[in-house]
Amino acid sequence: MNKKFVYMFTEGDASMKNLLGGKGANLAEMTNLGLPVPPGFVISTEACTDYYEQGQFVAEYIVNEVKEAMVKLEKLSGKRFGDVSNPLLVSVRSGSRASMPGMMDTILNLGLNDDTVLGLAELTQNPRFVYDSYRRFIQMFSDVVMEIPKSEFEHVLERVKEKKGVQFDTELTTEDLQEIISSYQIIYKKAIGEDFPADPQRQLLKAVKAVFRSWNNQRAIVYRRMNDIPMEWGTAVNVQMMVFGNMGDRSGTGVAFTRNPATGEKNIFGEYLINAQGEDVVAGIRTPKPISVLEQDMPQVYAQFIDIAHTLENHYHDMQDMEFTIENGKLYFLQTRNGKRTAAAALKVAVDMVEEGMITEKEAVLKVDPKQLDQLLHPTFDEKVLARAELLGSGLAASPGSAAGRLYFTAEEAKIAKTVRNERVILARQETSPEDIEGMVAARGIITARGGMTSHAAVVARGMGRCCVAGCGEARIDEHSKTFILGGKTFKEGDYISLDGSTGKVYAGDLRTREANITGDFGRFMTWADTYRRLRVRTNADTPHDAANAVSFGAEGIGLTRTEHMFFNEDRIARMRQMILSDTEDQRREALNHLLPMQRKDFTGIYEAMGERPVTVRLLDPPLHEFLPQHEDDIATLAHELGITFTEVKTRCAQLHEFNPMMGHRGCRLSVSYPEITQMQVRAIIEAALEVKKSNGYNIVPEIMVPLTEGRKEFRYVRGLVTGVADEVIAASGIEMKYLVGTMMEIPRACLTADEIAEEAAEFFSFGTNDLSQMTYGFSRDDVGTFMEDYYKKLIFDHDPFAKLDEKGVGLLMEIAIEKGKKVCPGIKLGICGEHGGDPASVEFFHRLGLDYVSCSPFRVPIARLAAAQAAIKEEMG
Amino acid sequence: MNKKFVYMFTEGDASMKNLLGGKGANLAEMTNLGLPVPPGFVISTEACTDYYEQGQFVAEYIVNEVKEAMVKLEKLSGKRFGDVSNPLLVSVRSGSRASMPGMMDTILNLGLNDDTVLGLAELTQNPRFVYDSYRRFIQMFSDVVMEIPKSEFEHVLERVKEKKGVQFDTELTTEDLQEIISSYQIIYKKAIGEDFPADPQRQLLKAVKAVFRSWNNQRAIVYRRMNDIPMEWGTAVNVQMMVFGNMGDRSGTGVAFTRNPATGEKNIFGEYLINAQGEDVVAGIRTPKPISVLEQDMPQVYAQFIDIAHTLENHYHDMQDMEFTIENGKLYFLQTRNGKRTAAAALKVAVDMVEEGMITEKEAVLKVDPKQLDQLLHPTFDEKVLARAELLGSGLAASPGSAAGRLYFTAEEAKIAKTVRNERVILARQETSPEDIEGMVAARGIITARGGMTSHAAVVARGMGRCCVAGCGEARIDEHSKTFILGGKTFKEGDYISLDGSTGKVYAGDLRTREANITGDFGRFMTWADTYRRLRVRTNADTPHDAANAVSFGAEGIGLTRTEHMFFNEDRIARMRQMILSDTEDQRREALNHLLPMQRKDFTGIYEAMGERPVTVRLLDPPLHEFLPQHEDDIATLAHELGITFTEVKTRCAQLHEFNPMMGHRGCRLSVSYPEITQMQVRAIIEAALEVKKSNGYNIVPEIMVPLTEGRKEFRYVRGLVTGVADEVIAASGIEMKYLVGTMMEIPRACLTADEIAEEAAEFFSFGTNDLSQMTYGFSRDDVGTFMEDYYKKLIFDHDPFAKLDEKGVGLLMEIAIEKGKKVCPGIKLGICGEHGGDPASVEFFHRLGLDYVSCSPFRVPIARLAAAQAAIKEEMG
Repeated sequence: MNKKFVYMFTEGDASMKNLLGGKGANLAEMTNLGLPVPPGFVISTEACTDYYEQGQFVAEYIVNEVKEAMVKLEKLSGKRFGDVSNPLLVSVRSGSRASMPGMMDTILNLGLNDDTVLGLAELTQNPRFVYDSYRRFIQMFSDVVMEIPKSEFEHVLERVKEKKGVQFDTELTTEDLQEIISSYQIIYKKAIGEDFPADPQRQLLKAVKAVFRSWNNQRAIVYRRMNDIPMEWGTAVNVQMMVFGNMGDRSGTGVAFTRNPATGEKNIFGEYLINAQGEDVVAGIRTPKPISVLEQDMPQVYAQFIDIAHTLENHYHDMQDMEFTIENGKLYFLQTRNGKRTAAAALKVAVDMVEEGMITEKEAVLKVDPKQLDQLLHPTFDEKVLARAELLGSGLAASPGSAAGRLYFTAEEAKIAKTVRNERVILARQETSPEDIEGMVAARGIITARGGMTSHAAVVARGMGRCCVAGCGEARIDEHSKTFILGGKTFKEGDYISLDGSTGKVYAGDLRTREANITGDFGRFMTWADTYRRLRVRTNADTPHDAANAVSFGAEGIGLTRTEHMFFNEDRIARMRQMILSDTEDQRREALNHLLPMQRKDFTGIYEAMGERPVTVRLLDPPLHEFLPQHEDDIATLAHELGITFTEVKTRCAQLHEFNPMMGHRGCRLSVSYPEITQMQVRAIIEAALEVKKSNGYNIVPEIMVPLTEGRKEFRYVRGLVTGVADEVIAASGIEMKYLVGTMMEIPRACLTADEIAEEAAEFFSFGTNDLSQMTYGFSRDDVGTFMEDYYKKLIFDHDPFAKLDEKGVGLLMEIAIEKGKKVCPGIKLGICGEHGGDPASVEFFHRLGLDYVSCSPFRVPIARLAAAQAAIKEEMG
Repeated sequence: MNKKFVYMFTEGDASMKNLLGGKGANLAEMTNLGLPVPPGFVISTEACTDYYEQGQFVAEYIVNEVKEAMVKLEKLSGKRFGDVSNPLLVSVRSGSRASMPGMMDTILNLGLNDDTVLGLAELTQNPRFVYDSYRRFIQMFSDVVMEIPKSEFEHVLERVKEKKGVQFDTELTTEDLQEIISSYQIIYKKAIGEDFPADPQRQLLKAVKAVFRSWNNQRAIVYRRMNDIPMEWGTAVNVQMMVFGNMGDRSGTGVAFTRNPATGEKNIFGEYLINAQGEDVVAGIRTPKPISVLEQDMPQVYAQFIDIAHTLENHYHDMQDMEFTIENGKLYFLQTRNGKRTAAAALKVAVDMVEEGMITEKEAVLKVDPKQLDQLLHPTFDEKVLARAELLGSGLAASPGSAAGRLYFTAEEAKIAKTVRNERVILARQETSPEDIEGMVAARGIITARGGMTSHAAVVARGMGRCCVAGCGEARIDEHSKTFILGGKTFKEGDYISLDGSTGKVYAGDLRTREANITGDFGRFMTWADTYRRLRVRTNADTPHDAANAVSFGAEGIGLTRTEHMFFNEDRIARMRQMILSDTEDQRREALNHLLPMQRKDFTGIYEAMGERPVTVRLLDPPLHEFLPQHEDDIATLAHELGITFTEVKTRCAQLHEFNPMMGHRGCRLSVSYPEITQMQVRAIIEAALEVKKSNGYNIVPEIMVPLTEGRKEFRYVRGLVTGVADEVIAASGIEMKYLVGTMMEIPRACLTADEIAEEAAEFFSFGTNDLSQMTYGFSRDDVGTFMEDYYKKLIFDHDPFAKLDEKGVGLLMEIAIEKGKKVCPGIKLGICGEHGGDPASVEFFHRLGLDYVSCSPFRVPIARLAAAQAAIKEEMG
C-alpha cells in the first residue's frame, strides 16, 4: 500500500480540498501562512472511501499512519497522548469537500481519562476547568461516537444543578463535576456494556470511525441529495491539538464573519463567549457577546484577530467564516472557510469585491450559488417568525417561496374564496390534476399528499411561481370531510396553515412572509453573467402573463408553450369535451371550429408579450381522458349539456381509460389518430402570428413542436399535417412568414434514431428530459414516491434524477441524439425544456453537450442564466 | 434520368426478384429457359417506389419506357396495341418480391374496345369468345382498377341469364354478351362520370397505376404486417401478351403443383377447366377437373406439361406452383413460383428432396417457414368444417391453435366447469389478470376484448400453449349478465363458440378440431436445424409441466422462470396477501416463512424436469397490488381472513395503487424495499437445487435473474442480497454448488450503463425485449391497442414492434449494452427472454448480434430452433 492517507497540516494546502476536505485544507493553508493554528493532521477523504470499500473497517495501514501522525503531533505540541504528567488532548472533527452540517461535527478534549485528568489538573492548577473538560468529553463522546441518547446525560446534569441550587454550568464546583463524571461513566457502561474507554488510542480510533460512519447517516444523505453532493466524495477527519477557551476569564471562544452574512455589508460580524468551549456558543444557554466587545475585553487579541481576518479574506478573495479560541490570552484560529450567506449578501459581496478590485467579474459570477437566487424571487418567511413557528411536518420542496393562507380542499372552493372573499388561499389536494388549474391560480400555496418533484402540482406550481409542498405523505388530506391532519393536529376548511416551498416544511397558523426583493446589485450582477454565458435561456410559459413575467426575469424566448392548460378554462372545457366525445370526424371538426378562435387568442397574447423573441408551441400532449370529468355528478352534468345519455358518456370515459397513461394515447399519437386537432392548433398558431405581425410589425417565426415522437415516419406524417395547414394559411394571408417545425426528444427511440428524424427536415430538437428520464429509468414520476426513499436509504441513489439530470444514462441518450442529429444536419437547433433546464448542475451538463438553449419555468430563468455563465467560465478556466 | 424502370422478359432472370418481383423474375427466367411463355415486360418495383415518392404519380420517363416496351412487345407478338385488324391484348398483373394476396391480382384482355372487338371477332372467327373476353375485361377493369362495386355487374349478368333461362355463362350467346356489355358501359359511365376508356394506352396506364395503388390498400397493409414485409419493397407490374383459354374446347386454363401442397407427396397436383379464363377456376361456378384428366383430353399437351413441370422443379430445386393456359391446343406457362404448402407438406418436401439428392440439408432447412411449424404443434380446425362455419368476427391471433368449447366468464366458473363437469371450456374475459390463472389453465381457449399481442392473456396463453384470441374489440363481454355478443349474435354462459388463435377468428358453435400431429419428418428435419444453428434455444417456463413440455420440443434450458404466477394458487394467495398487507418487516417475514416451502417445491419440480439443463429464475417482478383483490366482496373476505378491518385492507390497496404500474414499484425495486422477499426466494431457489442435486445427482447451477435493473448500485445492492443468502445456504448444506447472478436488460438505462453493471459482477444479461420495447417506444403494450391501427393505416408502422423486434431503436440499445458489457467482461453470457425470442425475423437479428441464446414459450421452441439455423446458414452464405 503506497498511498498516503494521513497528512500533517504542514503537508497540505488549500488546493487539496478534495483530498483533505475543506476544513483540513484550510487548516493546512493557515498553518503555512504562519497563522496561529494549533498543530494537527488530516486523515484523508480517501481513507473514508477505503473504510467503505473494506466493508466499514479501518484498515491496518491507515491505523498505522494515524499512529505515526500522532507521534509527530506529540513532538509539535511538546505533550504526549495519554501521558499522565503532560497529556496531549485533541479535537476530532469531520470535514468533507463541501461543508456538510449533516455529518458528525466535533469531539473535544479527546485523550482525557481518569489518569490524565489528574495530571492535567496538576499541570494547569485549574482542576475545575479540567473536570469540566472531562465531563464535556464523556458527554460528547457518548452522544456523538457511541450514540447514547443525550437526554440521559442532560438529566444527570440538571439533577445535580437542582440539588446544588445553581443555574449555570459554570457555577458547578470541581466536586459537583466529579460526581457528574461518575454518573456519566455509569450511564455509559449500562448503555454499551463496557467501561468508558480509557485508552486514548482507542478513543481516537472510535472517533475516527464515527466520523466515517456519519458520512452516511440519514441527515447526511438527505443533505447531500439536496445539495448535489456525490456520496463518493467521502469525508476527511481532522485531529488537532486542543486549545482551551474554558480555562478562565482570559480564555474564550467565538465565531465571526469578515462581512455580514445576512446583508453582505463589509463589517466584521460575529460573537464570542468568555470561559467557554465551542459547544457553549451553539447551545445558547449563555448569551454570547458581539465580537466588538472583545475590543474592550482584550484589545490586543482583538487587533490581532481583525488583522488575521483581513489577511484571510484577502488571501481567499472571499468572505470568511472563522472559528477562534483564546487560551489564556493567546489567540488561535481553529477554522476558516468561505462563509455561507443569504442570496442578497452573496450578490452584495460579489459586486463589492469587484469594486474593491479584489476579484474579477468572472470570479464574482462564480461566487453566487445559482440555486440561492430563488430566495430573491419568492416571498420568504421572516426568520424570527420561523423560530417560533409550530412545525407540523414536511414534504418535498416542490416549488420555492413561502405562503400562508386559509385551507381549501377543492379547486372550486379555492377559487370562490379568492375571487369572492379575496382570501389568501392554500389549496390542499391528495394530488392535483389539470382540472384543478383554476384553484391553483387562485391559491398562494399548494400542498399535496402524493406526487414527486415533477408531479402535476409541482410542475404547474413552479411554472406559475406558486409555492408548493408536494408528496407530503404524512398528511391526511380528506376532501370529503374537509380535514387536513398533520403532525397530530387537525385543520378544517378555512383554518390557516403556512407552507415553505423552499424547504418543504409545513407550519401551523398564519406566518408572516417577507416579499421578494430584487436589489440593484441583482441587475448588475446578472449583466455580468449574461456577458459570459453561451447558452441561451428560454422559458416554459403557457400564458401571456407568465411570458411577460419570464421576460422580466431575462428570458430570451419561449422554449415550451403547453397548449393543454388552455383548454381547462370554464368556457372551453365543454367544447373540448364535446370534441372528445364526438363519434365522427365531422363532429370533432365542428367542436374544434369553436375552439379555434379561443386558441388563436391565446397565441396572439403570447406573441405580443414576447415580441420578436422565439416562441415554441408544443402540440396537444396529454391523453384525452385527462379532459373528461371523473365524478359521477360531473359526468351527469356533461351528458345533460351534450344531450346524450349518462351511459354513453360513461362508456366513452371507460373506453379512454388507460393502464399506463404516461405511455398511452398522447403526444403526437393524438395527431396521428385525430389529425383535425393538430390542424386546428396549427391554424391558430399561424393565424395568430400573422395577426400580430400585421398589427405590431414583429418579425415572428413560430416554432411548432411535435411531442412524443418515436421515429422517422411518425414525424414525417405529423410534419406533413403541420406544413399542409401552415403553408395554406400563410399563402392565403399574402404575408410572408417563416416558421420552424421540430420535435421533442423525450422518447428513447427518438434519440436512438435522431439521424432519421433529422432527415425528415426536423428543424430543431428540444429534449424533454422529464419524460426522457421517466422512460430511460422506467420510472413513473407519479409513482416513484413510494420507493424513492428506500433508494436513498440504501445508498442506491444520491439524488432525484427528475431534479438533476442523470448524465450516464439519460445524458448518453442525449449525446447519441445530438451526434446523430448533427451528422445529418450540422446546424440543427438544440434545446431542452424539461424541469432540468432550471437545475444548475444539469445546466452545466447541457452547456458541455453544446445545446443552444435551455428552457425553464419563469422563476428559474435567472438561475439558469447564472448557471450557464458559470458553466462557460468554468470551461474556459479548464 | 438514367435509371431503367422497364424490362422485357428477355432482359431479366430469376435473380432479379427484388427488382422485377417474384412473378416477373420467374417469367423472365422461363422465357430464357426457352419455355412457352407469352412475351411481355415488367415495370420494376423501383417504378412503384418512384410513384409514391412523386406523390402517387407515374412520371413521364416511366410512361415513355412503358410505351417503348409496348412497341417491342408488338414486334414480338406480331400484333399491334389498339390495331383494329390484329389487336394486341395484354394481361396486367401485380407481382412483388414476396407473393402478396392482398394486392390487385390481374386484369385480362386489356386492349379491347368497341373497335378492336370487331377486328378480333373477324380475325378469330369466334365472336362469342371475343365478346365474352370483352365482357370480362370491362367487368375486371371496372372492379379492380376503378373500384366500382362488383355486385352491379353481377346483377346484370344474373338478370340476363335469368331472362334467357340459362345456368352457366358459357351458355350465353354473342347477342346476350353484347347486351351485357352495353349495360356494363352504362354502369361504368354512371359510376365514373365518363365513358369506359377506349384508348388502350389509357387503359394500360390506369391499370398500372391501380397496381401501384393496390400496394397500399388495407388488405395489403394487413398482409404485410402479418408476414414481415416492409412497405418499402413496392410491387412490380407484369404486362404480357394475352393467350386465350376461352377460345373453345381445344383451349383451357389451370393451375398445378409439382407436389401435393397439403401433404407434400410427389405427384403432380392440380386442376384445369376447358374453355375458360383464369378467373373461372377461382370463381368456382364450374367445377374444374383434376389435372390427370388432361392426359385423356389432350395427351400431347399433358406430356409437354409434365415435362416442363419437372424441368421447373429441377431448375428451382423446389416444389412449383404453376399457372398455364392452352390456346387452341398450344400450351403456355403464365407463372411459376415456389408453391405455398402446409407445414406438414413443407417438411415432407424438404426431407424428400434431400433424399432425392436435389437439395442439401442446409437448403432443406431454409425451405421451411419457421412460423409454419406452429401448425404442427397445435390443434387446428378441419378445413372442411371451417368452410361451413359461421364467422362472428375476429381479434388478434394471440396464441396459435384452435379450440371449441362452452363459454364461461370467470376463472372460477371455468375451473368448475372443467374440473367438476369435465367440459371443454372457453374463457371469455374483458381482459385477464394474474388472478385468472386457474381459469386459463382449465380453458382450451381464451378470448379477451382488450389487450394486445403481449397482454397478460396473450403471454400466458402462449406459454401454456392455449389457443387465445386477444383484443377482440368488437366483442362485448359482460361478466355480470354473462353474455358474449359478437357479429350481432348473443351467446350465454355454457353456449358453444370456437376460436382460431392462429388467425384470430371467432366462430359460432362447436367446430371439430384436428389434433396436432408431429410426423417422423419433423424429428429428422429439426436434427438438421440443430446441426447448423449456433444460438442456443431455451424456454420460458413457470411450471414443471411447461418445462417438461418444452424439453420435448427441444428446449436446452430455461431462460425465464417467472416466480409470480406461483403465488396465485388458492393455497398461496392468502399468504401472499398477508405478506403484502403486513405493517412490519417481522410480519412480512412470518408470512414469507409459510411461502418458503411452497416456493421451494416449485423449484424442485422444475429442476427435476430440466435435469442438468440451465434454469434461470427471475425474482418477483409484478407490483404487489396485482396480488390484491379488486372487488369489494373479496376485500371483505380477505379482511375477515386476516382479522383486520375492511377499511384497513381498502386503505392499503389504495396506497398501493399506481398511475403507471408498468413503471412503478416492481421488479428489483421490490427487492430494495422488501429485501426479505428476495431472501426468501433465493433461499427457495438454492435449497431446491441442493435438494435435487442430492437426490438425483444432477450438477445444477441455478441462474438467479434480477428484473428491471436500472444501474450499477441497484444491481450491486440486490446482488449482495442474493449472494448473502445463497452463500450461507450452500455453506450450511456442506454440498458444493455454483450459481450465477445476472440481470434482465429491460430498462433503457441498464443498456446504456451496461459496462457499470458488468463491473458489478453480473454474470449474464438477459434482454427483456417486451419491457425494453415498451420503454424505448414509450408505448404501454396494454394501451397501444387504441391507436396502433391508426399507425398501420397511416403507413407509420408496418409491423407490431412487440411481435417483431425494432432493430433500429431497441436493437441499437441492445448493441450498446452488448458492446459495453463485453468490454468489461468479454465472456458475459447473453440471452433474450422477451416474446421476440419466438419470432423468426427477430431470432435472425439476435443471431447477428451474437447472443448466446434465445428463450421463448415452449410451443415456440421449434420455431426458434429453425429460425436460428436459418440465420446461421444465411450468414454463412453471406
